[in-house]
Amino acid sequence: NLTNHEQKRAKVLTLDSMNPNVKRVEYAVRGPIVQRAVQIEKELKEGVKKPFTEVIKANIGDAHAMGQKPITFLRQVLALCSYPELLEDNMFPEDAKKRARRILESCGGHSIGAYSASQGIECIRQDVARYIERRDGGIPSSPDNIYLSTGASDAIVTMLKLLVCGEGRSRTGVMISIPQYPLYSAALADLGAVQISYYLDEDKCWSLDVAELRRALNAARQHCNPRVLCIINPGNPTGQVQSRQCIEDVIRFAKEEHLFLMADEVYQDNVYAEGCKFHSFKKVLFEMGPEYSSTVEMASFHSTSKCYMGECGFRGGYMEVINMDPEVKAQLTKLVSVRLCPPVPGQALLDLVVNPPQPDEPSYTTFMKERTAVLAALAEKARLTEETFNTVPGITCNPVQGAMYTFPRITLPQKAIDKAKEEGQVPDMYYCMRLLEEEGICLVPGSGFGQREGTFHFRMTILPPTEKLKVVLQKIREFHLRFTQEFS
Amino acid sequence: NLTNHEQKRAKVLTLDSMNPNVKRVEYAVRGPIVQRAVQIEKELKEGVKKPFTEVIKANIGDAHAMGQKPITFLRQVLALCSYPELLEDNMFPEDAKKRARRILESCGGHSIGAYSASQGIECIRQDVARYIERRDGGIPSSPDNIYLSTGASDAIVTMLKLLVCGEGRSRTGVMISIPQYPLYSAALADLGAVQISYYLDEDKCWSLDVAELRRALNAARQHCNPRVLCIINPGNPTGQVQSRQCIEDVIRFAKEEHLFLMADEVYQDNVYAEGCKFHSFKKVLFEMGPEYSSTVEMASFHSTSKCYMGECGFRGGYMEVINMDPEVKAQLTKLVSVRLCPPVPGQALLDLVVNPPQPDEPSYTTFMKERTAVLAALAEKARLTEETFNTVPGITCNPVQGAMYTFPRITLPQKAIDKAKEEGQVPDMYYCMRLLEEEGICLVPGSGFGQREGTFHFRMTILPPTEKLKVVLQKIREFHLRFTQEFS
Ligand SMILES: Cc1ncc(COP(=O)(O)O)c(C=O)c1O
Ligand SMILES: Cc1ncc(COP(=O)(O)O)c(C=O)c1O
Repeated sequence: NLTNHEQKRAKVLTLDSMNPNVKRVEYAVRGPIVQRAVQIEKELKEGVKKPFTEVIKANIGDAHAMGQKPITFLRQVLALCSYPELLEDNMFPEDAKKRARRILESCGGHSIGAYSASQGIECIRQDVARYIERRDGGIPSSPDNIYLSTGASDAIVTMLKLLVCGEGRSRTGVMISIPQYPLYSAALADLGAVQISYYLDEDKCWSLDVAELRRALNAARQHCNPRVLCIINPGNPTGQVQSRQCIEDVIRFAKEEHLFLMADEVYQDNVYAEGCKFHSFKKVLFEMGPEYSSTVEMASFHSTSKCYMGECGFRGGYMEVINMDPEVKAQLTKLVSVRLCPPVPGQALLDLVVNPPQPDEPSYTTFMKERTAVLAALAEKARLTEETFNTVPGITCNPVQGAMYTFPRITLPQKAIDKAKEEGQVPDMYYCMRLLEEEGICLVPGSGFGQREGTFHFRMTILPPTEKLKVVLQKIREFHLRFTQEFS
Repeated sequence: NLTNHEQKRAKVLTLDSMNPNVKRVEYAVRGPIVQRAVQIEKELKEGVKKPFTEVIKANIGDAHAMGQKPITFLRQVLALCSYPELLEDNMFPEDAKKRARRILESCGGHSIGAYSASQGIECIRQDVARYIERRDGGIPSSPDNIYLSTGASDAIVTMLKLLVCGEGRSRTGVMISIPQYPLYSAALADLGAVQISYYLDEDKCWSLDVAELRRALNAARQHCNPRVLCIINPGNPTGQVQSRQCIEDVIRFAKEEHLFLMADEVYQDNVYAEGCKFHSFKKVLFEMGPEYSSTVEMASFHSTSKCYMGECGFRGGYMEVINMDPEVKAQLTKLVSVRLCPPVPGQALLDLVVNPPQPDEPSYTTFMKERTAVLAALAEKARLTEETFNTVPGITCNPVQGAMYTFPRITLPQKAIDKAKEEGQVPDMYYCMRLLEEEGICLVPGSGFGQREGTFHFRMTILPPTEKLKVVLQKIREFHLRFTQEFS
């Protein structure tokens, strides 16, 4: 116990006196491995000798950082919006100017430096609604149900915040897939909500099985109040694309069990595998008839960070809410107003994504060429990654059907597992740390996403340029063989 | 009680089953008055006849929306960062290009579309630290203590989240001024923290008195654990600028009472009144000697939204933390990583604000001319506002020493107060609603910021262009006389 004097001298804010929920938050994608990677980069710059000359960061879905070039049209319009004097210039195509003028006209004082409505600029929400209608074959979407956001992260956290309540056994439980994108577990820890884990089936290409949802739900009912079901499709970190049938089953389950559905669809354009297709939860919901489409409550999320544009830094995104109680919607609108508005450049960017150049417009050809090239390269890299990993003894890898990641399973020798324990690390963290130190490749250990007890994985993005990706795959191969050898 | 069947049919998410803390959140700056203003604007567009032809929104500190032009240099660099092909062009000055190149070089893949470090781009944090050192006469600042943010709102909410813990009588109490900027009360409601109100002294030009801080603190100690003291200087909504002496007293109080200081200094360039000067809390803290500078824990906030630039839409900002426990800092870094990173265009903009054109650079003259013009116009409008209001019987108005607002006191006839009660509205809301309906002027009632029981105010920004501001002041004058007449 501290004396009075010592107490006075202690900090106001310490590990012991801070918000305990924040302490429980974990976020592996930017965890210790990444911090060490940044440190190694500094060491390399300072001339420290390493067995490699650069750190390759395959830990985060950050397309531009991996060399993907921005789409010309998007950036032209953003430059015009930033510095409208360029509208007088002849260097920009007419359709870019038209988009910029329309965005500026809907901004306060015709400046993207004005705050927007907290829900987002109205004409952009209209464009989002029309985009959703086109995507879903005409199923109506209303701009009133669209909320623009600071990346999808922001909207997901906001929606969870709205949903969480109760104490003890009545505390809200939220179902999330394992492996998961760690934003979800982090947000739930922060909110003090109960995480309900359901496992994806690695042996069936990481598919989702309603029997497993039911098992997890029933177990959770013993100790909390399950009210929310989160789905990521296409999947991060697992790269699977859900079948229409699976989505229908999930929706039926949500209705039966009275769950609010959160559909994270930020990878909706990232589908590569033959026979796979993106089905939006909303479309399937409406195709199931009014019994479903007028009752099941849902929010679906999209972002400018992924797909073909990969514009993560702009923090653009939206959510669409469906069947939300109007009084709750008013509360949601109030809640988002506290932070004033999402970044307007990100809103502008989103507008271009949902309202791209049309066939009769001058930018169309270049836009389509750039878009197609990005998606084709990703498809090729998805194939390459799966194929290469599956030639390595001790690594097994499901097809990368979509998204931007692979989550291969690695077999670790018992001695390596023991060694990791000795070092006070979980085994796949030890593995990834060694890979980083020896080959300069930065991955995220499977434990950061969750995995079945006793199994080990890592997550790698497929984003490095093809030639570099080949090197990365080769280096991981060599490392894995060496590592296995060392511990057998 | 609902039958089983009815329960199944009820929504998952209703007012009764949502997060009760969110329900408690209030945010007047974008509340019912503003919603009605938007509606009236639509009605005007549709040709509905009104006693006015446009709605003038003096409810929110949004400079560009009120016609202030963006600073050329800032927007040139942003356009260059958005579309780096423009770097090849001859239309931009060399210093703008130099800034853009430096920013792009510190972005992943040289693109502002890449995620940045969660704490913000390192070279920008360095520039912020150097800016603070210049501002504070050489007192050292470290980039490790700088966190870039999504506007100041984001950093303030994050800092509060870190600080709040405990249950019942141990729940964290946070001292905020009354009147306050409603972000604070909203964030505290959301976090379930205890709001401790201390009153600014209207009779002494809204100054802060340590005796009042002590009164509020002692009262609060009966029912919570006061740990945080929030200060806004220059003040919103009150427009006062704190004296150096006052800041010293506050710091001494914080040390004695073991409080974490949060200094909201987003209006640091907005000081108009003769004899007033901005003193940063950090500078005063360090000038008080090591007994203070090495112990008092503090966070200070700044934003790109205010001052001379008024770039609200970009959502740029930073906080500097001082004397923060390193373990807590690691937790803070982890917490901000969950949302990945602040918008990179906003980070770039902040970089220009803290590293503006220098006397030997080509953009210097224009930049200084634009900057000075904005600040001079604000000073003129501050004077004009105070003078005009004080000629109206029943309105008394303190000098607008700084920031962008005036918070005049209005005397309301008892009959008006009774009438408001009849309509189920607080009296100043009734007053502002009538003003909106009759004159098309949108203000925020004082009750949205807090005020001493039995007193009434409204907040008005001084941002409308001078000629329009004169009209607004004249219309409020006429309305106030008419309103007073009607109810006497
Ligand atoms: C499944 C999923 N959801 C949401 C996000 C958040 O993305 P952002 O906030 O950049 O839109 C990500 C980012 O990687 C993701 O993978
Ligand atoms: C005192 C004060 N703090 C913080 C903010 C938040 O500003 P932003 O989030 O745009 O930086 C404002 C905005 O008006 C303010 O007046």
